[in-house]
Amino acid sequence: MRTIEWDYDHNLVKMIDQRKLPSVFEIAEFTDYNEVAVAIRDMYIRGAPAIGAAAGFGMALAAQQSNASNREALLRDLETAAEVLRATRPTAVNLFWGIERALRVATDEEIEHVDDIRQAILDEAQRLADEDVEINKRMARNGAALVKEGDTILHHCNTGSLATVDWGTALGVIRMANEQGKNIHVFLDETRPRLQGARLSAWECEEYNIPYTLIADNAAGHYMRTGQIDICFVGSDRTAANGDVANKIGTYKLGVVAKENGIPFFPVVPTSTVDLNLASGDDIPIEERAPDEVTDLTLFGRPVAPKGAKIGNPAFDVTPRKYVTGIVTEHSVVYPPYDINLRRVVEEEQAKIRAKRK
Amino acid sequence: MRTIEWDYDHNLVKMIDQRKLPSVFEIAEFTDYNEVAVAIRDMYIRGAPAIGAAAGFGMALAAQQSNASNREALLRDLETAAEVLRATRPTAVNLFWGIERALRVATDEEIEHVDDIRQAILDEAQRLADEDVEINKRMARNGAALVKEGDTILHHCNTGSLATVDWGTALGVIRMANEQGKNIHVFLDETRPRLQGARLSAWECEEYNIPYTLIADNAAGHYMRTGQIDICFVGSDRTAANGDVANKIGTYKLGVVAKENGIPFFPVVPTSTVDLNLASGDDIPIEERAPDEVTDLTLFGRPVAPKGAKIGNPAFDVTPRKYVTGIVTEHSVVYPPYDINLRRVVEEEQAKIRAKRK
Repeated sequence: MRTIEWDYDHNLVKMIDQRKLPSVFEIAEFTDYNEVAVAIRDMYIRGAPAIGAAAGFGMALAAQQSNASNREALLRDLETAAEVLRATRPTAVNLFWGIERALRVATDEEIEHVDDIRQAILDEAQRLADEDVEINKRMARNGAALVKEGDTILHHCNTGSLATVDWGTALGVIRMANEQGKNIHVFLDETRPRLQGARLSAWECEEYNIPYTLIADNAAGHYMRTGQIDICFVGSDRTAANGDVANKIGTYKLGVVAKENGIPFFPVVPTSTVDLNLASGDDIPIEERAPDEVTDLTLFGRPVAPKGAKIGNPAFDVTPRKYVTGIVTEHSVVYPPYDINLRRVVEEEQAKIRAKRK
Repeated sequence: MRTIEWDYDHNLVKMIDQRKLPSVFEIAEFTDYNEVAVAIRDMYIRGAPAIGAAAGFGMALAAQQSNASNREALLRDLETAAEVLRATRPTAVNLFWGIERALRVATDEEIEHVDDIRQAILDEAQRLADEDVEINKRMARNGAALVKEGDTILHHCNTGSLATVDWGTALGVIRMANEQGKNIHVFLDETRPRLQGARLSAWECEEYNIPYTLIADNAAGHYMRTGQIDICFVGSDRTAANGDVANKIGTYKLGVVAKENGIPFFPVVPTSTVDLNLASGDDIPIEERAPDEVTDLTLFGRPVAPKGAKIGNPAFDVTPRKYVTGIVTEHSVVYPPYDINLRRVVEEEQAKIRAKRK
């Protein structure tokens, strides 16, 4: 099944409850847009395109729930629902876009009867969902063309089927390259605090037979610096008109370190995620989430990755001296040239220790 | 008490069992150097300087355990112990240095009797431990001089009292700056996979009344880019002769991003941690640790930070376009100038959607 879909037999919304993966695969059902709003905020469903679809179907539910007998009354109810849905998560622009598409249909004067409007809103949500799948496949082909035979790819968070209606954005590119037989390998950032990489992307890689290694986010730099990564693909929750990309926390560090190592860094971005109203990324609101995501790992009171997941776990990395402003030692703060200055202070301190021992 | 110390009443080594912090403060006792080796590998104790002291006291235990009645027999037993201790963790050079100091004393021809050698090895380990505390305070003063009134400091892993015999290296600098009344604030990387920042550094900050905010490692870049960090202090497990610094995984990413943002980045490094035998950081062996540190968060089956810890938890960050090689969309891969090219493809795709709806 898709990550989110409309059940035409029972007139309700179904979602995979992603909070429970990879341990439990469970479908949640929604008949009330207020519950859909809670599901978005509590991350039953996440990922910009999937949130867009949830907003669209949420509006379709709101239209269905409304008792309105004329357009004006229906519009009032829809505006109330829009308020509730908009308040769930501020960063992903697709949320607002899913809502706006529903409202635009509702004000279309060519549709006269309230029940026809209800139907048109559902049709629009369904169209949005179907488009998402088709758009993802087009992006996947465009992105896969950038992948060379044998490439090792770095990926952040989850941007697969579960982040979209189906197929995926960045992970969709990787899946496509894999299906094209390009002999790829993907390093998955676990993506603290919510561990979407460990819980969801590793699970998807198992499902689609994509060879992968799961790593702590801290390890990505080590693999990049030591020449083990050829290309990076990430998602985007909102891209400003100037090309600045807001995405899951940690993406920025990856982008900087990729550039520093000459590794191509490609966000995979449906145009619905581009916000032409914002001049730069600094105008994008950044959501602050609950502290217990960081402190309370009992939230993850079970193994977070699929059983047998291949793990890379280097305990240390090397920071080349070009990034080191100075080295604080017990002797003094040592500045470059380190070859000369570091040796001098180490030898002086060693001489002191020898002298004291006598 | 110190992180590690010799109990002269019972002739044994005591350590704080750091695996249990911050929930439980527990002292472990060791009468066998083999157990000390296990404690180093399993990270009852960690941090380069503390590991150095553990190696020294481990050798003192080995001397005590040996039945040797002459220097040659004692040296054989000590070499066996040295092998066992050396095999525990490959990256921190202090381990080897602690062992070497014991062996050097044991071969000192000026000490004749076996029992005197035993005593001299213990004295040397004690001296190493005492020196560590004194060296840390000197480093702390040197480093604190780099901190300005009101600075916000970024810190990785744990480099405090618990990483040393007492006081600390990078966190020691921060503690000193705090005691000097500089009105500082420290952002603590939680430091996956073992969460030394959340479990140990936050606990130490509580102990020493250092104002702090605990963050997921992924968030550090966001705080640096948005001007919320003034200076970084990190530790080092081994520093090469050229100034390349091996430290806890994730340090490299921090160093690159700090430089990119013009933020001073200072490793705090006792000279004992500098390995003049290695020309560059690429020669430093990087320890690969067990996969379950990444997958099995049930290892941390309780809240990982002190109760009431102040948390920063931004869910997203912004990657400025200068780091973005290209943007994969369903239309095409868009390259700079994004202002022009991104708008063009977004508007083309929007027109297509409108046309289809008609």
